[in-house]
Amino acid sequence: MKLDALVFDAYGTLFDVHSVMRRCETCWPGKGAALSAAWRAKQLEYTWQRSLMRAYRPFSEVTRDALEHSCQALGLALSPAQRDELMGEYLRLALFPDVALQGLPGKKAILSNGSPDMLDPLVKQSGLRFDAVLSVDELKIYKPAPEVYALAVGRLGVPARRIGFVSSNCWDALGAKAFGFNVFWINRNGAPVDRLGVQPDAILKSLGDLPEVLR
Amino acid sequence: MKLDALVFDAYGTLFDVHSVMRRCETCWPGKGAALSAAWRAKQLEYTWQRSLMRAYRPFSEVTRDALEHSCQALGLALSPAQRDELMGEYLRLALFPDVALQGLPGKKAILSNGSPDMLDPLVKQSGLRFDAVLSVDELKIYKPAPEVYALAVGRLGVPARRIGFVSSNCWDALGAKAFGFNVFWINRNGAPVDRLGVQPDAILKSLGDLPEVLR
Repeated sequence: MKLDALVFDAYGTLFDVHSVMRRCETCWPGKGAALSAAWRAKQLEYTWQRSLMRAYRPFSEVTRDALEHSCQALGLALSPAQRDELMGEYLRLALFPDVALQGLPGKKAILSNGSPDMLDPLVKQSGLRFDAVLSVDELKIYKPAPEVYALAVGRLGVPARRIGFVSSNCWDALGAKAFGFNVFWINRNGAPVDRLGVQPDAILKSLGDLPEVLR
Repeated sequence: MKLDALVFDAYGTLFDVHSVMRRCETCWPGKGAALSAAWRAKQLEYTWQRSLMRAYRPFSEVTRDALEHSCQALGLALSPAQRDELMGEYLRLALFPDVALQGLPGKKAILSNGSPDMLDPLVKQSGLRFDAVLSVDELKIYKPAPEVYALAVGRLGVPARRIGFVSSNCWDALGAKAFGFNVFWINRNGAPVDRLGVQPDAILKSLGDLPEVLR
């Protein structure tokens, strides 16, 4: 497959949010997994609901709101210091060990729900270099709205059919596919494909399998 | 509070989906709760994602897709007969015991994500009478998009500020509030309010508390 650009999702795809989960467990032993799951689910729900309500707020705010709601729902007291600590983890996420951009062809970009206040420090400390780091924040609507994926086309100057989109979030991969990208779903956990009317072009177990399919 | 119309959400507000959960438990003993939770979560996710992707499909199809995906994710074999049985439960849901429309003032309507093939048989067998049964299906976008709530204004001929909206789904209540309705969140389970930038006008433990606040 010959492509002129690769566009990557950030959270869960390049950056491992496991350290956030570990910090939840440190704060509330035995409740870390439940809180992490509730927090992530609510974070995404709020992005979709706010997009449909046309009441966009930046991802940092949505993420903080989701944390506060999840703690309240689970009966966990959250001090301002704990909240800031957990939010701070998002700025220091580790790269997945299978992230290696060197051998990959064409331009490289990130296209993320993350607002610049979250995304920029994270990318900076990762040591990775991208041709563009694009945030939904300039559009005020979240994935999987098609205008989000169109942002990459416009900014990279590469048509959709020459762009490969890489995400470990199946719904994000399928949103990108419906838009017109070539889509690689990184399915690290062996989940079934979401039923949203389209299929990824390829399902990979790891980012390490990308060079092989792009050859 | 003087209102000229009351608009009700259907699933979870007037109609109790517990029988669907019970049927899940009958099919897969010990897994009913996990499947019900996954199914409901995925059903809603698909409504939001498809709305943002502009890839609307009717709620009956989305609900079936969500069931199939959830069974696959949980490793539960779903036969076509089981699938049809579980989907059939949606047409026979019981009313919550606190549903009583007689004493309530003004026009009454349902405004639901349900497609007519799911909603019409359900309302018919309930014995309840409404001035309008409105489905997002004619708009091809799901709640909480503002145009959904606008449908009730247009169809009932009552301005938003004279309409009371009643839902047990907090995000739905808040979507209606952001649109401009007077909103009663039926919080049967003591959940915290979602953080979407607005608050319900009243939080009630039961539909039975409605006449009191409407007086």
